[in-house]
Amino acid sequence: MCIEMQGEIIAIGNELTSGRIIKTTSGFAAHHLFEAGYDIYAMHTIGDTPALIGEALKRALGRVDFVLVTGGLGPTDDDMTTTAVSKALDLPTMPNLDLLYQIRKHLETTAGPVISPLEKLAWLPEGAEALNPDAKMAGFQLIHDKKPIFFLPGVPHQMRTLLTEQVLPRLATWYKDQELSSLQRIYKTFGKTETEINQIVAALPLHENVEIGYYPVFPDVHLSLIVRNNGSKNGKKIFAESCATVEESLGAAIYGKDRESMAFIVGNLLQKNGKKLSLAESCTGGLISHHVTSVPGSSGWFLGGVVSYANKIKTDFLGVEESLLQKYGAVSAEVAAAMASGMREKSNADISLSVTGIAGPGGGTNEKPVGTVFIGIGTANAIQTHHFLFSGSRYEIQHLTAQTALNRIRQELINNI
Amino acid sequence: MCIEMQGEIIAIGNELTSGRIIKTTSGFAAHHLFEAGYDIYAMHTIGDTPALIGEALKRALGRVDFVLVTGGLGPTDDDMTTTAVSKALDLPTMPNLDLLYQIRKHLETTAGPVISPLEKLAWLPEGAEALNPDAKMAGFQLIHDKKPIFFLPGVPHQMRTLLTEQVLPRLATWYKDQELSSLQRIYKTFGKTETEINQIVAALPLHENVEIGYYPVFPDVHLSLIVRNNGSKNGKKIFAESCATVEESLGAAIYGKDRESMAFIVGNLLQKNGKKLSLAESCTGGLISHHVTSVPGSSGWFLGGVVSYANKIKTDFLGVEESLLQKYGAVSAEVAAAMASGMREKSNADISLSVTGIAGPGGGTNEKPVGTVFIGIGTANAIQTHHFLFSGSRYEIQHLTAQTALNRIRQELINNI
Repeated sequence: MCIEMQGEIIAIGNELTSGRIIKTTSGFAAHHLFEAGYDIYAMHTIGDTPALIGEALKRALGRVDFVLVTGGLGPTDDDMTTTAVSKALDLPTMPNLDLLYQIRKHLETTAGPVISPLEKLAWLPEGAEALNPDAKMAGFQLIHDKKPIFFLPGVPHQMRTLLTEQVLPRLATWYKDQELSSLQRIYKTFGKTETEINQIVAALPLHENVEIGYYPVFPDVHLSLIVRNNGSKNGKKIFAESCATVEESLGAAIYGKDRESMAFIVGNLLQKNGKKLSLAESCTGGLISHHVTSVPGSSGWFLGGVVSYANKIKTDFLGVEESLLQKYGAVSAEVAAAMASGMREKSNADISLSVTGIAGPGGGTNEKPVGTVFIGIGTANAIQTHHFLFSGSRYEIQHLTAQTALNRIRQELINNI
Repeated sequence: MCIEMQGEIIAIGNELTSGRIIKTTSGFAAHHLFEAGYDIYAMHTIGDTPALIGEALKRALGRVDFVLVTGGLGPTDDDMTTTAVSKALDLPTMPNLDLLYQIRKHLETTAGPVISPLEKLAWLPEGAEALNPDAKMAGFQLIHDKKPIFFLPGVPHQMRTLLTEQVLPRLATWYKDQELSSLQRIYKTFGKTETEINQIVAALPLHENVEIGYYPVFPDVHLSLIVRNNGSKNGKKIFAESCATVEESLGAAIYGKDRESMAFIVGNLLQKNGKKLSLAESCTGGLISHHVTSVPGSSGWFLGGVVSYANKIKTDFLGVEESLLQKYGAVSAEVAAAMASGMREKSNADISLSVTGIAGPGGGTNEKPVGTVFIGIGTANAIQTHHFLFSGSRYEIQHLTAQTALNRIRQELINNI
């Protein structure tokens, strides 16, 4: 039998409630806790106000099994989580001597001042256990009313490290008698609307224990499939069967699953077929290259690219003839084709992708309005071009174009190999 | 006299509490509401569970002046905000005939099915007013206990449009007797730690009404300066004086303010001096080009770039001699210099920036570990190279390198013009 353990996440910082910083750490924590089988009851974001911090913590302790608090642990004057917690739970703040020693040792080696604001990090509520005894980042654990509370820094990479290396193992030990888990799969689709995906999937004969969610994540639509409490073999079977049914119904609209990006999928297909890619970008200005080179190991299948913003770069680096530019304009099927073939020949690639268009906000005409985009794909056998009219902001047009272009290469690789 | 009006934001969606989607719309809303002079008491994220939605809404109505609810308004089966609100506030759900007409009209023109799941969007709690009567997106307003509640879609660009075009003007009318506003400035700094910035600014003789916050926003540190309730002239004077004091104390560590990106600042400096830039990127793989071309109008000062991932692209597109690559390796000061000067000559740019390094996770050696980066800057007068050893993930090394490289160009333009 499975009992669901519930947690709450409290993110602290005036920079968050004033919208100055867009919080992403709570989402990261929720994702990892959910995958480990815990249920997130709620996530809260509040300012650096001691009374509010105390109230939110006490309310959470009254209704869930564990609490994760992030932010407000730093050395600066506006960080007040530790003080607030000490007051709310009526615990004196005391120096942790090991931490103090480490901080002073660290300061010695970097020639900092003798009394540093960093020493503030060594003062913790009574009973707290430091999560990182080498003092390179803040973070501690408190047990209150037999419930664990974890305090992590708001700095994203520190918070992520401590969550995965400290919080998750500690929670697992704490709840070792419970068998918890959810099976979840995310399908990433591109090219169909949320409503279209919903209509296809709602018509499928899925088991009643399967939860389906639809999420537009620009420029994609993601579908989430969850089977909870799969302690029994039955859960795993239902999960596998439901996944197969959904995959069959959506077919090529699904480009990847879970954390796979479009560029990762394209790279896998290239690698598997021993093909090399090069790029010639105009209106996307390096965005496609950036997507591609964000994939570790992309040097195995990506040669490089040219960002040909000025016409002179198109002629001198890609060999596009000036007469083409004059006759058809830089944003045209003819120039997209010349960019793709020029790049392919000069880079010795198997496949070259080219993009030319008008991302806006300026530069549009009646004949070629903002959002006009031509995509070219050159291989040894053929050069194809595709014409699109996208709408949206500069950001949206650039990102839609990049995803559309990578998806075309994906289709090319799937169909012609 | 100013009274502070407080609001609460409730974001709804299982995709949020499972961490499947990282919420950015709440931060956007908080930012705009804060700038308009409202105080955000708290932001909550909860799942698509009617009981929780009702509870959170009722608690918020009990303690703040207005509530913004986002998400769960869509046509799919898992969207249940409207039903939950009707139940919590004891209001029947009724069809809004105008919306229904618009939806049916829209479906006719796109040849959709006669009874569409989209019609769900026309059913609203009694007394609700649609925020967008042409039915192109969901969203409505309710007045409860003389407090406005706004329901917006979770889709970021729809939410943003309705927030700025509907919610803010409606709130301003609602509270027209109150004079509200905060003056806030964000200073973006690069190259100093949060502690260093804190120590400099804490020593300044600032007025007691000035609130300072420090926020590490990788790879920058941002400083926020706020003067609240500045209805009087005095507030504006304090704000201007404090800004001047902070600017003087931090000097060139500040690269920009409020929404200015590093690339935007670099572009302004180039434009002002009539100079053109080109790029030769290896380990950053197009990221710098992407930053640069995200700035509208960048074609006025940016010519283009080469992403020279493979060595052959370095020789064939940038004219880097093969003997240099063999003698010093692709990641070396010599190759960085050759990339910058080759790109500058071939593109006819005034300034060329080159980057070569090892972003990891693979590819490091004892001599050149992951994080080794060389940056080259070529002008008509000189070629300089800089050597760095960054630490972190592939993502962090790429982003640190890009920001460092753009900052070097900024310094070059400030110092030598």
